[in-house]
Amino acid sequence: MKQKIIIGVLGPGENASPEACELAYQLGRSIAKEGWIVLTGGREYGTMDAAMRGATEEGGLTIGVLPLTNSRNSSPFATIRIVTGLGSARNSINVLSSHVVLICGMSAGTASEVAVAIKSNKKVILVNQDEQTVAFFRKIGPQRIITTKTVEETMAIVRDYVAMNQIA
Amino acid sequence: MKQKIIIGVLGPGENASPEACELAYQLGRSIAKEGWIVLTGGREYGTMDAAMRGATEEGGLTIGVLPLTNSRNSSPFATIRIVTGLGSARNSINVLSSHVVLICGMSAGTASEVAVAIKSNKKVILVNQDEQTVAFFRKIGPQRIITTKTVEETMAIVRDYVAMNQIA
Amino acid sequence: MKQKIIIGVLGPGENASPEACELAYQLGRSIAKEGWIVLTGGREYGTMDAAMRGATEEGGLTIGVLPLTNSRNSSPFATIRIVTGLGSARNSINVLSSHVVLICGMSAGTASEVAVAIKSNKKVILVNQDEQTVAFFRKIGPQRIITTKTVEETMAIVRDYVAMNQIA
Amino acid sequence: MKQKIIIGVLGPGENASPEACELAYQLGRSIAKEGWIVLTGGREYGTMDAAMRGATEEGGLTIGVLPLTNSRNSSPFATIRIVTGLGSARNSINVLSSHVVLICGMSAGTASEVAVAIKSNKKVILVNQDEQTVAFFRKIGPQRIITTKTVEETMAIVRDYVAMNQIA
Repeated sequence: MKQKIIIGVLGPGENASPEACELAYQLGRSIAKEGWIVLTGGREYGTMDAAMRGATEEGGLTIGVLPLTNSRNSSPFATIRIVTGLGSARNSINVLSSHVVLICGMSAGTASEVAVAIKSNKKVILVNQDEQTVAFFRKIGPQRIITTKTVEETMAIVRDYVAMNQIA
Repeated sequence: MKQKIIIGVLGPGENASPEACELAYQLGRSIAKEGWIVLTGGREYGTMDAAMRGATEEGGLTIGVLPLTNSRNSSPFATIRIVTGLGSARNSINVLSSHVVLICGMSAGTASEVAVAIKSNKKVILVNQDEQTVAFFRKIGPQRIITTKTVEETMAIVRDYVAMNQIA
Repeated sequence: MKQKIIIGVLGPGENASPEACELAYQLGRSIAKEGWIVLTGGREYGTMDAAMRGATEEGGLTIGVLPLTNSRNSSPFATIRIVTGLGSARNSINVLSSHVVLICGMSAGTASEVAVAIKSNKKVILVNQDEQTVAFFRKIGPQRIITTKTVEETMAIVRDYVAMNQIA
Repeated sequence: MKQKIIIGVLGPGENASPEACELAYQLGRSIAKEGWIVLTGGREYGTMDAAMRGATEEGGLTIGVLPLTNSRNSSPFATIRIVTGLGSARNSINVLSSHVVLICGMSAGTASEVAVAIKSNKKVILVNQDEQTVAFFRKIGPQRIITTKTVEETMAIVRDYVAMNQIA
C-alpha cells in the first residue's frame, strides 16, 4: 500500500477572515479531489474547519492535529484526530507532517507555522497574501517562498511538486 | 463523514521478540478487517512494522507517529506519516490519539506508553504479558488495566468498547 | 563559569505517600547542601513540592519543569520555572535535563519517567522502592537500575557519579 | 526563597549578524547586572552564545533550552542546561519560560518565537529591528509589540515591567 499524500492547509482559527475561510474551503475540496489528505490544526474554527469541511464534502480524508489532551475542541470534519496535548507546540507537527504547506490568511499562530516551514525546508506556498507579509517571509527565507493568487494556480504547483518528488 | 476509529498497537522496536511481532501482525490484520486504523510509533522495526504490515495486507490504513523531523526511518507500511520531531516525547501522542491502546511485548519505551495511558485514563489492554508486568501496572493503575491472552479475546473487548462508546 | 549540576527528584504529585514526600524533602536538602540544583516536575503537590522545599530551606536553587502554559500551578519553592505547555510530555525534559535521576514513590507519571530514563541511558536510582517495582524495571533495563534504601546511601552514589564524570 | 526573574534573549544562531551578537552580548551583561537570569536557545552559535557569554562575564546565571536529547551542542556559557529533545518545538518553551522576551536579529526560528510570544500574550520587545519586520509583527499582534533601539532603552522597559508585575 502506498504512502498517502498529505497537504497542510494552515491559517487562522477564531479570527479568520471570510475570504481566508473560503480559500481554505476551496483548497480542501481541490486537495480531496486529487485523492490527497488535508491536514490542519484540527479545531472547529476558521480555516481549519473550512478546509476539512471542503475535503469531506468531496469524500476526502482529513487529519486534525489537535492541541489539547482530548478531541473535545475538534472540528466535526476532522476524520482522523491526532491528539497531541502539546498546545501551540503542535504547530511544528502540522508543518513537518505535510508534504506541502499552503498558507491561507495570517495570524500569530500561522506566522509561527510559516517560520517553522522555512526553517525545516518545507515547500510552502503563501496563497493570496498581502505584499507586506510576502516581503517579510521572503527576507527570512528567500529560496523557499512561493506565492500564488488563486486555488487553480496553487493546485497546479502542488501537483507538479507531488509528481516530481514521486511521494506516493 | 465520520471520525475514524484509531487503535494503537504499541510495543518494542529493534528488540521486539518474534512472538510480540507475530501478535502485533495479527492484531494489525484484525483491526484493519474492522475498518479501523492501526496507529504505531511508525518505525521500520519490530511490533511497529509488524502491526502496520498486517493492517496494510488487509487493505487498512495505518498511522505512523514518527520520532524524527523527517520520515526516513518510517516503516514502508505506514500509509499516513505523522512527523513529530519530538523523539521519545512523541510516545504520549501515540497514546492520546488512540481510542484503545493494545500493548504487545515490553521495553522501556513501551512501559512509558503504558504509564502515559494509565495517567491519561485511556483504555489499555496488556496482551499476553507476563505476571510480573501485569502486577506492576495493576499496582500503579488498578482500574484501567485489562489483560488478555489472545487476539480474539482482545478484539472482542475492543469491539465492545467501540460499540458502547459510539466513537464513530 | 561552570555548568551547574542538576539532580532530578521525581515522584508522585497529589497522591504521594507521606514517606515519599519525607524522602524527597531530605534528598532536596542534601542536594542543595552539595551546591547542586534540584529539578522536579514543579507542581505544588507531593514529592515535587517537598524536594524543592527541602532545597530552598538550605538556600539551594530549584528548577520546576511545569506542564501548563503558565506557572499558576507551580510550587512556591520552584525558584526557576520552566514553563513548557506540554502536559505530561514534559516528563522527558525532567529526565533528560537531570545529570542523575532519583525516584521517590511511584505512580503512573513516575513510572513513565523511570522508563524514559532507562531508554535514554540516564543514571537512575530507585530510592526505597518495593521489590515488585525494582523487579519490573530491572527486567526492562537491567544495566541501568540502581537501588538504594536511604538518603545517605543515595547521596554517596550521586557524589561518586558527579566526581567521576566531572560534570562541572 | 524568591522566584528568579528570567529574561529571554532570542535571536539567530549560525547566521546571526555581528550587530545582533553584540546587542545580545550587551543585553546579557545588563540582565545579569540586575541579578536576573538570561534564557536562550542554548546553542554555541550566534546570539544565544553571545547573550550567555555576556551574562556569565557579569557572574550571572544562564539557562540554555537545548533542542537535542543531550547537551553536546550547548554553548559553554549555558550554566543551566535544559535538555528537551524536542528540536525546534523547544522554541515555545523559550518564550513561555521568559518573563520578558527580547528579540535581537531575525531568522526563521526567531520569527517563530516572536509569533509564539504574541500568541501567548508575552511581553515581547523587538530590539533594533528594521521597519518591515516591525510592520509585519504589528499587523499580526498590534497590542503586544514594543520596539526599542538601544540596550539602555530596552532595559528601562524591562525594569519597569518587572517592578510593576512584582514577579519575584
